[in-house]
Amino acid sequence: MELCIIGSRGHQSYVLDGLKDVPFVKITGISTGTEDDCVVEMKHIFGDRAQDAEVFSDYYSMLDTLKPDVVSIAGPLEKHSQMCIDAFELGIHVFCEKPVATNLKELEKLKNAFAGTDVHFASMMGMRYDPAFYTAWCSVMDGIIGEVRLINAQKSYKLGHRPNNYSKHETYGGTIPWVGSHAIDWVHWFSCESFQTVYAAHSSKHNCGLGELEMTALCLFSLTNDIFASVSMDYFRPDSASTHGDDRIRIVGTRGIIEVNKGKVFLINNNANGRTGLKVVFDRQIFSDFIEHINGNSVSLIDAEDTFIVTEACLLARQSADEERVIAF
Amino acid sequence: MELCIIGSRGHQSYVLDGLKDVPFVKITGISTGTEDDCVVEMKHIFGDRAQDAEVFSDYYSMLDTLKPDVVSIAGPLEKHSQMCIDAFELGIHVFCEKPVATNLKELEKLKNAFAGTDVHFASMMGMRYDPAFYTAWCSVMDGIIGEVRLINAQKSYKLGHRPNNYSKHETYGGTIPWVGSHAIDWVHWFSCESFQTVYAAHSSKHNCGLGELEMTALCLFSLTNDIFASVSMDYFRPDSASTHGDDRIRIVGTRGIIEVNKGKVFLINNNANGRTGLKVVFDRQIFSDFIEHINGNSVSLIDAEDTFIVTEACLLARQSADEERVIAF
Repeated sequence: MELCIIGSRGHQSYVLDGLKDVPFVKITGISTGTEDDCVVEMKHIFGDRAQDAEVFSDYYSMLDTLKPDVVSIAGPLEKHSQMCIDAFELGIHVFCEKPVATNLKELEKLKNAFAGTDVHFASMMGMRYDPAFYTAWCSVMDGIIGEVRLINAQKSYKLGHRPNNYSKHETYGGTIPWVGSHAIDWVHWFSCESFQTVYAAHSSKHNCGLGELEMTALCLFSLTNDIFASVSMDYFRPDSASTHGDDRIRIVGTRGIIEVNKGKVFLINNNANGRTGLKVVFDRQIFSDFIEHINGNSVSLIDAEDTFIVTEACLLARQSADEERVIAF
Repeated sequence: MELCIIGSRGHQSYVLDGLKDVPFVKITGISTGTEDDCVVEMKHIFGDRAQDAEVFSDYYSMLDTLKPDVVSIAGPLEKHSQMCIDAFELGIHVFCEKPVATNLKELEKLKNAFAGTDVHFASMMGMRYDPAFYTAWCSVMDGIIGEVRLINAQKSYKLGHRPNNYSKHETYGGTIPWVGSHAIDWVHWFSCESFQTVYAAHSSKHNCGLGELEMTALCLFSLTNDIFASVSMDYFRPDSASTHGDDRIRIVGTRGIIEVNKGKVFLINNNANGRTGLKVVFDRQIFSDFIEHINGNSVSLIDAEDTFIVTEACLLARQSADEERVIAF
């Protein structure tokens, strides 16, 4: 199976990690997807696996010339949707960094381009493959907390050093789509309900000179069946913290409450004797799972439909925060 | 100092507990404030401390006849504001269960009646006197996390057995004012900013036949200086849980993050080496502090202004949830 790579931003490390499990995948071409990025860095990241890859300055020429089976895209965010559309038209399976579109018009074009193709398309929603979150999700799907009623999700990151593309909405997309997308995806994934309205707020105050980058954001989603979800995001995690991120979720059901915190899963229900930890077991990897899905050996935990739903939710939440009003889906 | 008691609902236990510290306070009169409640139960609750108290079927006659220095009110919620107004007009200090008003019109009348009096007035916001929350608050006021930017507050209760007055908005007030008021008060107390807008949602689904009682609610407050706060409430805490309530707060600041969870206080900032627990020390009690405030020996942690601000925030949040729209303060 032949793979081309566009860009070295975001989570291309998922590809590198996953390649170990799928030795039959060969990187045939690489392209930065932008003149701003450096192909030497890309070659460095992919090392031996890219040693025979042809380098293209223009991503479209690469796709059109090599016609790979799969392309992995993590270049400039603002170019993602067009890159995906080009790949769809060439019949190439697409694994793409989120957000796959940075505005609703692009998203609509992307959905239209995907409709009718038979390619596999998924965004890099790596958190679904986090062992603790996956364990919690399986437990909720098994009914361990009854019916889901309320969700509180949290993303908290260290700010660290951020390159210039984080400073502008045009190239960064915003903290709600970039950081919040994972948590917004959990809301969609755990609730099994449809988004109905969102109200959100965000602020770029105290962002250490990073232009438009929002340091805090908060969303309130209402879903079908009167399920409500809060999504909290911030870049204020202190440098001294033990991990880059502090990802959490708390899901309140009619018969119990489950939580993920610090990579552990905690349950309270009337079968558990007080608050108990659940055993966390999981061995699937997002990129190799994507490849095995194409081969018919697995079913990806995230697909095109999920990707479109979550992207729309992120973009409407950002719009709600920008316009300070409730937005209906 | 003479004290009259109206009602045995809510948190009159604060009064009973606090009386131990202020032996000079004498209960001179008790009244249920409603024909629905039982004076025998009231006498039972206050035991020896009420043995010389005169019993009145009509609370106003009690106040007007005995002219106590202080009245503690925890009767039917829907009568609180008029009871407070009557006491203000008689020059009596008022310690009142929250909410002190169940609609905005009542609240306005109450504020007008209070203006110009020199009585001390506070609601039973007992959570300010919780040692962990107070410790966290002192630390935040000392600047341990820099400037507050984001707050996530949580109240989660067991449903248990609830009397009929919980089934109707008219007599219960709603889950946002009843359960959420503590957490909404934390937002006000920790942020030191003014509420600007609120958007909220609530649902009475799965309430075990308890009429209008909402089982879940979620609020998003925007405050001055671009501070945002989520307040999550639910009655789905399983019976098997070790405590009735699961009260939490997480406060994100420009230089650190502090949390209260399970009666403990955790801090991450760049002086702390990772996440550390803070020593929880506190020995003040809400009712005895109220009395010592009147005597000039202390300053209550909650006063009339706080009470009015938080009551308004609760009522506007409930209105937002009822009307599904953003409401400005």
